[in-house]
Amino acid sequence: MTETLRVALAERAYPIHIGVGLIDEPDSYRPHLAGGACAVITDRTVAPLYLSRVRRAIEAAGARTIEIVIEPGEAAKRWATLDQVIDRLLAARCDRQTLVVALGGGVVGDLAGFAAAIYQRGVPYLQVPTTLLAQVDSSVGGKTAINHARGKNMVGAFHQPQAVIADLSTLATLSQRELRAGLAEVIKHGVALDAPLVGWLEANLERLLAREPAALTHAVRRSCELKAGIVAADEREAGARVLLNLGHTFGHAIEAGMGYGEWLHGEAVAAGMVMAAELSERVGMIGAGEVRRVRDLVARAGLPTKGPALAPERYFELMGVDKKAARGSVRFVLLGSIGHAEVRGDLREELVRQALAACSLNAAAAQ
Amino acid sequence: MTETLRVALAERAYPIHIGVGLIDEPDSYRPHLAGGACAVITDRTVAPLYLSRVRRAIEAAGARTIEIVIEPGEAAKRWATLDQVIDRLLAARCDRQTLVVALGGGVVGDLAGFAAAIYQRGVPYLQVPTTLLAQVDSSVGGKTAINHARGKNMVGAFHQPQAVIADLSTLATLSQRELRAGLAEVIKHGVALDAPLVGWLEANLERLLAREPAALTHAVRRSCELKAGIVAADEREAGARVLLNLGHTFGHAIEAGMGYGEWLHGEAVAAGMVMAAELSERVGMIGAGEVRRVRDLVARAGLPTKGPALAPERYFELMGVDKKAARGSVRFVLLGSIGHAEVRGDLREELVRQALAACSLNAAAAQ
Repeated sequence: MTETLRVALAERAYPIHIGVGLIDEPDSYRPHLAGGACAVITDRTVAPLYLSRVRRAIEAAGARTIEIVIEPGEAAKRWATLDQVIDRLLAARCDRQTLVVALGGGVVGDLAGFAAAIYQRGVPYLQVPTTLLAQVDSSVGGKTAINHARGKNMVGAFHQPQAVIADLSTLATLSQRELRAGLAEVIKHGVALDAPLVGWLEANLERLLAREPAALTHAVRRSCELKAGIVAADEREAGARVLLNLGHTFGHAIEAGMGYGEWLHGEAVAAGMVMAAELSERVGMIGAGEVRRVRDLVARAGLPTKGPALAPERYFELMGVDKKAARGSVRFVLLGSIGHAEVRGDLREELVRQALAACSLNAAAAQ
Repeated sequence: MTETLRVALAERAYPIHIGVGLIDEPDSYRPHLAGGACAVITDRTVAPLYLSRVRRAIEAAGARTIEIVIEPGEAAKRWATLDQVIDRLLAARCDRQTLVVALGGGVVGDLAGFAAAIYQRGVPYLQVPTTLLAQVDSSVGGKTAINHARGKNMVGAFHQPQAVIADLSTLATLSQRELRAGLAEVIKHGVALDAPLVGWLEANLERLLAREPAALTHAVRRSCELKAGIVAADEREAGARVLLNLGHTFGHAIEAGMGYGEWLHGEAVAAGMVMAAELSERVGMIGAGEVRRVRDLVARAGLPTKGPALAPERYFELMGVDKKAARGSVRFVLLGSIGHAEVRGDLREELVRQALAACSLNAAAAQ
């Protein structure tokens, strides 16, 4: 049974299809194949699992396919990989009507989406997320990017897909670590935006870890609903969309500071979310009980509640070029309560240091 | 006396200011300095001429400036230069409110505009064109790009500027060769869209070559009017905007085939325009008299009426990946009459070969 949500963005509106077996259905691709050519971009992990099935379905829909397989992992989000993709598209004479299909997790979605945004000044693309993280978060909303040594996602575009095809059956092949990393973004959606989702997660986390289909379906659908609502109201992150970055200011610093790929994005966001909760308490926005609820949920999901042993100065340095920084001063997404994130700037540095110290593996980091 | 035109693009509408001394006026920049920081991107040719004047005006408007000087010439439109610009922006902690100022000719405008399009998923920018070509064409309409070994402008974005500041006084320092290259695009606007402009050029070409201010003002204003009208109707080149590519399918092949920078863009477009006229005659769309008018105007402007000695196969190869190619078959912008360009596809290859032979420096190219 397929469910369809909608991202309401006027002439850029698009559907999110959620179901089982969608990648095998020619109808998943047919409406978007105006040009007759389709470039499927995936990585070496996903290719052996799903590429031939996707190719068969696209060919059954009447298009020729070009297959581009990149290296897996966050380190692939760089100029060199982008150039390699562009080169392949040009060599295959892909034109402005070519459909790009991003088949994989968040890295493939970000990179392939960005390639689609800039190839010949923009071609249409489909997001076909195969990880929980991509299905609940990164495939929806049109954010695409690559990383820079000086910061994560520093080069990119807002480029909305034609559709998101979330096939729940692809979650079966996910490692438990990747599943947990995806849960971090589900938890984030609840903690930032939706207290009932937090309550549901507290009651159903073990079902998700056991990959019960009904539980996964609920988590994906509710996450997509929340995200689609925010994106429709604020496509380019001029307002409410920034609330989805709960845990990401700290999280991006962890990822960049450790070298991309060392920590999974979801793991870094999980620790970053606990840091944000700790900081919210120190600012007087929430109490210790709410911090505990966030930390417990993260811990039960098997995700890190503490960051790595980075010096506070390194955190500040890495956060200083975070995109959410406005006019040089870091702004944080904090919690007014469970389910209500808020943006705060001009915090006393001492409070940030305390929150980092409370959530760092190495107590010396507090020095 | 400053004239202001408007590019009517709903929430992306913006003004084109045309006048003398505009780069020195703080008011040229002030309305766009929301963020307090301004990154001026220019090249080594333009920097010694105008950078300090622009910096003074921006600082008088209350912003700090970051100066980024790239190498001059078409060869700068590549990944490496883009990365260098992004790196400087990050090192200077430029955020999403930073205003980018593209100070220079078409290369600077294309590269700086693209950097603005993708830096942190898009920051605002001003076009401050200092060449005739940039003032009459490339600074208007939001097309930004870099080149790829397999084709010109193959990687880019549609990213509209906040405003275009065309200071006619900067044309005084232009080499005669650059002036002529700019005239190619003025001629193109007339030949493709506006028969009266062609008549005016036939009567006033010598005044333009002598840089008479009144003549230059007319040429810049009329070109911007024509281009703004087309862009407002078809921002992303889904229809009429493609007519502005008259001469560009052949022209891009010349530029790529000779190595970027060997022929100036305007020179390649000039020869490409004569090729398009020759091809239009062979298709039976116009007569020999109209071809002669195009050729004579190009010749009087001191621009090449013939392309370099590239083999026809090389032209076909280079045109095959031209962005205007749809579904693998090359479509040409041809002439229904002077002032009326039309798109034609499915031409007999033999006719294209004949047009190339008629316009090539080396007759052997026709073999």
